[in-house]
Amino acid sequence: MSAPRTLLVERRARVLHVTLNRPALRNAMSLDMVDELINALADAEQAGDRAIVLRGAEGHFCSGGDIKDMGAAQGQPVSDDVDPIANVNARFGELCVAYASTGLPVVAVVEGAVMGGGFGLACVADVVLASETALFRLPETGLGIVPAQIAPFLVERLGYSEARRLAVTGGKLDALKALDVGLVHAVHPTADLDAALEAELAQIRKGAPNAIAATKALMRRARLEAPASLVQDAAAAFAKAARSDEGAEGMTAFLEKRPARWAQEG
Amino acid sequence: MSAPRTLLVERRARVLHVTLNRPALRNAMSLDMVDELINALADAEQAGDRAIVLRGAEGHFCSGGDIKDMGAAQGQPVSDDVDPIANVNARFGELCVAYASTGLPVVAVVEGAVMGGGFGLACVADVVLASETALFRLPETGLGIVPAQIAPFLVERLGYSEARRLAVTGGKLDALKALDVGLVHAVHPTADLDAALEAELAQIRKGAPNAIAATKALMRRARLEAPASLVQDAAAAFAKAARSDEGAEGMTAFLEKRPARWAQEG
Amino acid sequence: MSAPRTLLVERRARVLHVTLNRPALRNAMSLDMVDELINALADAEQAGDRAIVLRGAEGHFCSGGDIKDMGAAQGQPVSDDVDPIANVNARFGELCVAYASTGLPVVAVVEGAVMGGGFGLACVADVVLASETALFRLPETGLGIVPAQIAPFLVERLGYSEARRLAVTGGKLDALKALDVGLVHAVHPTADLDAALEAELAQIRKGAPNAIAATKALMRRARLEAPASLVQDAAAAFAKAARSDEGAEGMTAFLEKRPARWAQEG
Repeated sequence: MSAPRTLLVERRARVLHVTLNRPALRNAMSLDMVDELINALADAEQAGDRAIVLRGAEGHFCSGGDIKDMGAAQGQPVSDDVDPIANVNARFGELCVAYASTGLPVVAVVEGAVMGGGFGLACVADVVLASETALFRLPETGLGIVPAQIAPFLVERLGYSEARRLAVTGGKLDALKALDVGLVHAVHPTADLDAALEAELAQIRKGAPNAIAATKALMRRARLEAPASLVQDAAAAFAKAARSDEGAEGMTAFLEKRPARWAQEG
Repeated sequence: MSAPRTLLVERRARVLHVTLNRPALRNAMSLDMVDELINALADAEQAGDRAIVLRGAEGHFCSGGDIKDMGAAQGQPVSDDVDPIANVNARFGELCVAYASTGLPVVAVVEGAVMGGGFGLACVADVVLASETALFRLPETGLGIVPAQIAPFLVERLGYSEARRLAVTGGKLDALKALDVGLVHAVHPTADLDAALEAELAQIRKGAPNAIAATKALMRRARLEAPASLVQDAAAAFAKAARSDEGAEGMTAFLEKRPARWAQEG
Repeated sequence: MSAPRTLLVERRARVLHVTLNRPALRNAMSLDMVDELINALADAEQAGDRAIVLRGAEGHFCSGGDIKDMGAAQGQPVSDDVDPIANVNARFGELCVAYASTGLPVVAVVEGAVMGGGFGLACVADVVLASETALFRLPETGLGIVPAQIAPFLVERLGYSEARRLAVTGGKLDALKALDVGLVHAVHPTADLDAALEAELAQIRKGAPNAIAATKALMRRARLEAPASLVQDAAAAFAKAARSDEGAEGMTAFLEKRPARWAQEG
């Protein structure tokens, strides 16, 4: 993988820290950034990292899609089969789906502008820590366009009703309102974000990685499937975990009253 | 359309203000009112209104279904194919579905009694502003009947778990409890409701009408479909909006640092 | 039905009060307890009880699955068709499904440890009253295993997003946090729990039993089906209730300004 141009990526103690790094544009999400974020997740998954952390450079998380990419796509020829604007947009959708579907814990740390696609990224993360400076907004409909790829993830995070309300009213929220509707999970002064992130990661490290991934996968199905239909698959997932190395180590550590192997990393 | 008998309908600045107007019965929802509410929404959609506002006359929103209609239906002959009670009830269900499915922003302003079918109407609105006087209740099970048509919309608004709890316990909530569970979005003294409504409508006017409608439609699907399955349709909706008159106007207004055309109305 | 060994079961005023009673193990859920809880629910349904109440003996609700059962299952032979661990786990899933699907009101009163399977039981109850002492936790992933059968019910209760966050971070919540995310519906000093439970049951008694059951069934479908597709079935459920003995009694009582028959019991 070539070095990313739009991200700062650093692996520390088996956590991949990814910083959106286009500060002059408040980290607007370009096509390059979309590709590089997809690559960063694949890298973390392949390396067996314990979590991936998303953050923005210099006081903002992400101001949304980069208008230049849409302008460029708008200038390209459209055919019945190929719409360059739709293609650019779908690629961002694939990014959201990838992060929303990964078995890895995803943590977002958000400050300043959290707009459009950045709002969407905050919705796909498992845990969001917000600075008091965070300001959320869905500017799309005000520009005559649609928060299309993020709509499903607004619904996942906020529930259908609150997502719809925000879509109709422009989606402006400060950090405390975001906490109130469950968009973020904690609000801290910016100076305390690093410590809060470490505490969250310490908590995440206590869970066995494969067990967390299996739980996330079951819950994703449970959003759209009836509980009764999941009993057998859930039982199979449970038995698989119990018979795995993780299950054996977890039981041994419990009986020996020591932290499990995976809790000692980092 | 003949003049409604159970509603006051007034169009102001391209917003259709609809007042349930049977104050002697705390605006109980008769069959006529159901039909007239369906007609009012169709009228607003055809006229290209920017929003529809539901309110009740003289201090109450709506005390629920009118018992007389059910009494009349109960007296009519039942056959294998036709049950007059079911027909009356299904017609109310069509009303709820119509308001829950429209691309138009729907705002409800609720005071006093918000019961049964009135509770359901509050659940289908995108935004609900409540007076401090608002009292919510689901009286159906206490009467041996079922909050049948509103059940899906209680689930949409409150989530399955909270809806179920209310159904089991009679669903009594004051305005602040309703705010707490997300049934309403703001609570004001009655004297401030008009100003709060205008502020909400001003916010809604900033969004392009077609873009709002497309977003609402995507979110409705996202409640029941997996995000990955929506990527291509979302991309198509995005490209359609970007290439539309709204998209062009939105971009131009943004570059010219002026409000878009649709934000200047009203 | 033989007398249960792991439960205390008492019927008072047509409410079945079930106490998980293995206090030396903080009421850990053994296979026997799973079977006896399933039997208790079937008993309450057949007896026409008005509600079933779940509680734990001596200051704790339930500390989760009994490790001994899993140890025993682990020692049994596995074939392609039969995995004893999966079977034990699936049986617990059937318990959760049974309580989540019953037409009876289910109330849980929780104190102290509410862990793993106990956490899951709290999620399937319609109403949960918590002592200030209640401490919720999902210890599974820390032990290398999966909160598999309870995953769907965490999603039902908390919504997908909050459930996922708890799964990733170990799910530790005190009573007030649990109230905040909607896991429990009220928090009381332990000394006040009995009175709070009686008040809740008094509220539940006001609803007609068949009407409550029909409403719960509709809402369960509404979680996963589009509202428009439910209109006709909802209308049929409404008409059936209106024409039933309950509907007749409810209407008569209303006209006679007296409590309905079902509201006078208990």
